[in-house]
Amino acid sequence: MTPAKRRGVFIAIEGPDGAGKSTQAAMLAERIEREARLRVVRVREPGGTPTGERVREVLLDPKLAAMCPWTELLLYMASRAQLVEEVIRPALAAGHAVVSDRFLLSSVVYQGYAGAIGPRPVLTLARAAFKDCLPDLTVVVDVPAAEGLSRSSRRRRGARGGKADRVEAKGLAYAEKVRAGFLDAAKRRLAGRSVILDGRAPAGEVAEDIWHEVRRVL
Amino acid sequence: MTPAKRRGVFIAIEGPDGAGKSTQAAMLAERIEREARLRVVRVREPGGTPTGERVREVLLDPKLAAMCPWTELLLYMASRAQLVEEVIRPALAAGHAVVSDRFLLSSVVYQGYAGAIGPRPVLTLARAAFKDCLPDLTVVVDVPAAEGLSRSSRRRRGARGGKADRVEAKGLAYAEKVRAGFLDAAKRRLAGRSVILDGRAPAGEVAEDIWHEVRRVL
Repeated sequence: MTPAKRRGVFIAIEGPDGAGKSTQAAMLAERIEREARLRVVRVREPGGTPTGERVREVLLDPKLAAMCPWTELLLYMASRAQLVEEVIRPALAAGHAVVSDRFLLSSVVYQGYAGAIGPRPVLTLARAAFKDCLPDLTVVVDVPAAEGLSRSSRRRRGARGGKADRVEAKGLAYAEKVRAGFLDAAKRRLAGRSVILDGRAPAGEVAEDIWHEVRRVL
Repeated sequence: MTPAKRRGVFIAIEGPDGAGKSTQAAMLAERIEREARLRVVRVREPGGTPTGERVREVLLDPKLAAMCPWTELLLYMASRAQLVEEVIRPALAAGHAVVSDRFLLSSVVYQGYAGAIGPRPVLTLARAAFKDCLPDLTVVVDVPAAEGLSRSSRRRRGARGGKADRVEAKGLAYAEKVRAGFLDAAKRRLAGRSVILDGRAPAGEVAEDIWHEVRRVL
């Protein structure tokens, strides 16, 4: 909405649970600050604004498990729209770099490819709502479905005393669908503004690969 | 999403604040039950489901006044999507009548015509999200902007001890925009599935006019 000129750079780190996105987002932010001497604004989804955090509570409330696919998509998009207007757009207008741990591609994949909605309505909605505020580069950190699943299971169980949760319960077939969705979306829907990197290497090597790509858009 | 066959009838009562929608919705529901011997499910927006009520709290929270237009639209749509899946679609599949106090047209008008978004993106989104679950008939209860404003001001002040609120503060120019939006939307966007009625008459006469139109779709 704001006609402010965009001068900064917007990077989204995407991929399935267990791919190491948060670690990579932190390492990338640190490196952009150190080597490009840009101020970096880090955001996470859903949330990141007072409105977005309230929407996040609704999305993650286990008592609201009967939430339908479109409701879920619209709530993610609402949180994202507020994040764009309140945080991302002003940061870019000020010439900062924005590093986001998940962004639009997660909705395209989870509610689109792997959900009941399909990728096209998600992208159509995003183009209307976010217009000129889409990432300059989307980095998909790719790991085989079974590996992502086992990494994120360990982490979830560690945090929650060994119990499996709803995401885990969906199992390997779902994880395969999600991975395939990320790969297809990056290649076909964000061609030219996305890159797929192998997330199986040690974190330092993945970070090096990401930096190699990000440097081109800085 | 559900392929259940639709047998009931879906009526939305729309119009600006102060037009008398809630009174008319109640009278219509009572009359459908009495004369058409249909079970009537009444809904209100935003809200009407556990998820929708949580979204309603976010939308009406004065602490979140910095909410941007797209966030507001997406939250209304999220509440509505859940209402459609959890309440309206099952009611129609069971052959009941649904009477809604506000529905899609309110978003088309408040966020579309009178807001920053414009009517087209709102309608495009609604067609994707609600598909086959749009009202059979939308009744717009029309009153001149100044009259709606003064009726709703009295009610609001009555409930809140004399203080003007955010809606009132927007004033007459905004109320004129809203009224013009309802009239244009009913004529051009919902042609054939909407009717505009004069809401200045006594409630009993307006109810009679509404019944005359509703009878045709029962």
